[in-house]
Amino acid sequence: MVNKKPLPENARCVFKGKIFEVWQWEQKMYDGSVEIFERVKRQNTASVIAVVEDRILMLSQEQPDRRAPFSSLPGGRVNEGEDPLDAAKRELLEETGYVSNDWTLWKEHQPVTKMEWTIYTYIARHCIKKQEPRLDPGERILSRLIDFEEFLLLSENPEFSETELSGVLLRARLDSKAKEALHSLLF
Amino acid sequence: MVNKKPLPENARCVFKGKIFEVWQWEQKMYDGSVEIFERVKRQNTASVIAVVEDRILMLSQEQPDRRAPFSSLPGGRVNEGEDPLDAAKRELLEETGYVSNDWTLWKEHQPVTKMEWTIYTYIARHCIKKQEPRLDPGERILSRLIDFEEFLLLSENPEFSETELSGVLLRARLDSKAKEALHSLLF
Repeated sequence: MVNKKPLPENARCVFKGKIFEVWQWEQKMYDGSVEIFERVKRQNTASVIAVVEDRILMLSQEQPDRRAPFSSLPGGRVNEGEDPLDAAKRELLEETGYVSNDWTLWKEHQPVTKMEWTIYTYIARHCIKKQEPRLDPGERILSRLIDFEEFLLLSENPEFSETELSGVLLRARLDSKAKEALHSLLF
Repeated sequence: MVNKKPLPENARCVFKGKIFEVWQWEQKMYDGSVEIFERVKRQNTASVIAVVEDRILMLSQEQPDRRAPFSSLPGGRVNEGEDPLDAAKRELLEETGYVSNDWTLWKEHQPVTKMEWTIYTYIARHCIKKQEPRLDPGERILSRLIDFEEFLLLSENPEFSETELSGVLLRARLDSKAKEALHSLLF
């Protein structure tokens, strides 16, 4: 978790690209001198731990600029003006065809120091399949259901892209109380 | 670990700021259509696990755009044209006053999907103090020596900024074989 301050009021956007904006501001140093500080800002993302009966929905994805398939939770970018929970629901439906009426925000964190980027991770319990997935032209996604033990083993998968979750899974694998707590949280 | 492809040959830099560059390219999608893809690029960084006899050098830092002091390894940005190992040696000396003649590259990883940013983590054994630290005006740094058990407990510190290392420390705390292996690696 990064404890950075929010972008200061004197920060201004000096570049706006497709995904990233670059922001700069004058920052007073400890000796009273002033330097230009810089951060990038990107669309926030939402991820979903989707529970289907006693199993969890996991994706195997390919993307045009990635070397190999990788495992991930369902999820994607939060559009401008969109509520993160709505983005989570939309991405779950688009990528897997599943819906839920039981949503909890599990974690909200900023993983990168010099980047304004919040990842919202939701737990969606009692998911049911509503339709077939509808994928973008830049997505190749297979979804499958894994059991709790297989879910925990994602901590050992170097291609699993959710680093915050990996730590939780590792702790649950190695500590029986943490495992029980995670199991109760999900099921 | 992120398995992304390197920036493709047709990528071009569309913005160059103080720390970040923004790169774009035309990417063919799976249906043959083309979209503009974007990544940011920043200076790489080097971190050092610095071993002083049976202890490890840890920093408590303040920075003007962070909310609160945070724990980190010694380290910092790799300057343009600088070898990462030279950057590691330079930052260790500047931030702590310590030097070593026994360096190993322990990990090299890219933590962020849409960012060209490599973190090189070195182990520097048998460090000795050569001089007082020389800090930049944007740095407030205290260094202290912690023992192996305290080092492992950094996995429980939400303000510890080295997420890759946190996983290794957690594993060592919870698995005696992993603990022994890490101890042998360092001492």
